Amino acid sequence: MKKTSIKDIAKLSGVSVATVSRVINNNGRFSEETRKKVLEVIKETNYQMNFSAKSLRMNKSFSVGILVPDISNYFFSSVVQQIEAILFEQGYSTIICNTGRNFDKEMAYLNMLESKMVDGLIVISGADEFGFKYANAENGIPYVCIDRQPKDKNTIFISSNHYQGAFEATEALIHAGVKSPAICMHTRQSSSAKERLKGFQDALKKNNIGYDEELSKFTVDLQKDDYQENIRTFIEKTSNIDGIFAINDTIALELLDLLPTIGKNIPDDIKIIGFDDTPQCKYTVPKLSSVTQNIPRIAQITVDYLLSIIANPNQNSSITEIVPIDLALRESV
Amino acid sequence: MKKTSIKDIAKLSGVSVATVSRVINNNGRFSEETRKKVLEVIKETNYQMNFSAKSLRMNKSFSVGILVPDISNYFFSSVVQQIEAILFEQGYSTIICNTGRNFDKEMAYLNMLESKMVDGLIVISGADEFGFKYANAENGIPYVCIDRQPKDKNTIFISSNHYQGAFEATEALIHAGVKSPAICMHTRQSSSAKERLKGFQDALKKNNIGYDEELSKFTVDLQKDDYQENIRTFIEKTSNIDGIFAINDTIALELLDLLPTIGKNIPDDIKIIGFDDTPQCKYTVPKLSSVTQNIPRIAQITVDYLLSIIANPNQNSSITEIVPIDLALRESV
Repeated sequence: MKKTSIKDIAKLSGVSVATVSRVINNNGRFSEETRKKVLEVIKETNYQMNFSAKSLRMNKSFSVGILVPDISNYFFSSVVQQIEAILFEQGYSTIICNTGRNFDKEMAYLNMLESKMVDGLIVISGADEFGFKYANAENGIPYVCIDRQPKDKNTIFISSNHYQGAFEATEALIHAGVKSPAICMHTRQSSSAKERLKGFQDALKKNNIGYDEELSKFTVDLQKDDYQENIRTFIEKTSNIDGIFAINDTIALELLDLLPTIGKNIPDDIKIIGFDDTPQCKYTVPKLSSVTQNIPRIAQITVDYLLSIIANPNQNSSITEIVPIDLALRESV
Repeated sequence: MKKTSIKDIAKLSGVSVATVSRVINNNGRFSEETRKKVLEVIKETNYQMNFSAKSLRMNKSFSVGILVPDISNYFFSSVVQQIEAILFEQGYSTIICNTGRNFDKEMAYLNMLESKMVDGLIVISGADEFGFKYANAENGIPYVCIDRQPKDKNTIFISSNHYQGAFEATEALIHAGVKSPAICMHTRQSSSAKERLKGFQDALKKNNIGYDEELSKFTVDLQKDDYQENIRTFIEKTSNIDGIFAINDTIALELLDLLPTIGKNIPDDIKIIGFDDTPQCKYTVPKLSSVTQNIPRIAQITVDYLLSIIANPNQNSSITEIVPIDLALRESV
């Protein structure tokens, strides 16, 4: 069978080749009717856009790789989806690599993406103990880091203001009458977690509340069997705790579920605020307060910077953009 | 700077080149101590595994592409993560492409994956109105379809038993005393949604309950502003409805949230069961009953079949594997 060409598609749709190209690349002006007609013909003929030929012609692959620690995490999957959508509109495919917060995988996928000749990289590193470092940065692929602070300062780094988020969340607890707030962290370390801890501590300081390493902070590991026991032990040990800033919503949801079973009602006995504003927040009883990251903004500026350094690899790439957060206050505070 | 070789890594770790290779490929026997030592040296030296050289030597890319409709969906992201983990252990990288249930994107990403020379494809098609068809199947890349029925019967297709899931969920409602069950569907069509509707209808038939197209079924589109109004209208119109099988947990959560605001208590007035057993189910009040898909099993047999047809592309590929589901019964029924 003869392979369908873009000319065939144009002929069958009754439009010009240029219009077909605009529809395929979702680029420029065409009516919704034209779009539908062209896509119908494409479907009927099983036409495949020849990306490879285009790539060869322009010495570009029109593909971008994203390293992401955990696609089942709400923040990560949302930001990746929005980046993908923006890049696709700009004619780029997105290759998503799930690294499982694993250093070996990050390295393997970085290597794979180099071998697949992507034009650019977006890195959300999960191996935070070390801080992401692109060994081949000198002659490697242009890249932008999101969320987790890279080792190399000569990098474009885009992140929410985790410090501000934690500070405002903690102050929201205090303004709601909390006298003895605690922070509940994950055992996993990361640059964003450190920023959030600092924000919590500074909010206490500003409000003349003491911070005690033993009594104002506890850590849980939801992967471990004894995490509920650990939460119970902490709450019993610190009977005066009347507000908790949970470092993420997953932990906040656990607290919301567990605390009533040990006689602590929310929000009367203990107020709770989480971080990420996951969709679940609105389905809990009481509805969970949380910190909202501006995901559309992070996605947009990430793509803007990446396309800019792809176009001009020699430009200054020592840039840090910190995106403000918002609070979503609900019944749990 | 001289590039670090695998020999350097071996020397610095005090082990043989073969052992380093085993550690890198996570393949064969080595102690945890050896693993740690080798990975430490790899980190210190920023050694990058030369996947491309390996690929060239074996005429394989050791990479697999996955088309996934929506990585923010619990079922899809879980199955993709588990597939990635199994494939990585087998020495394969996984390229994840988020198609947004969009036919154009599916086609573009399929093309991109072909141009990146992946060894195999896993397709979870989102453009279900047409059913997935791999135009280049004849001389293309070996592939396996998950969850959504492909057009071409000469395909390996792996899916949960959506019919059985819906049937058992509906019977669980009936056994709990429901006399007039309804099904709440999404406006989006898919082969799995059709199977679930059939399961619901057959459970009614088996229990001598009539099915009425107008009164036993309603559809919502959570993307639209008026979805809450639509739910309210349906519930008011069908005052005898005392049980709802929601086609997915997202819709079930909405019902759980909305129905009490119009005077319907759950489970006393209306019992609800969802589909997917998302982590949210245990955080709602009352806790949500749901249908559990066997994600580990789906991931494992998908990889088994894919690696088998990669190794032997000419084998019979007209295979359908239907994986049984389980019920997770909680307070909402």
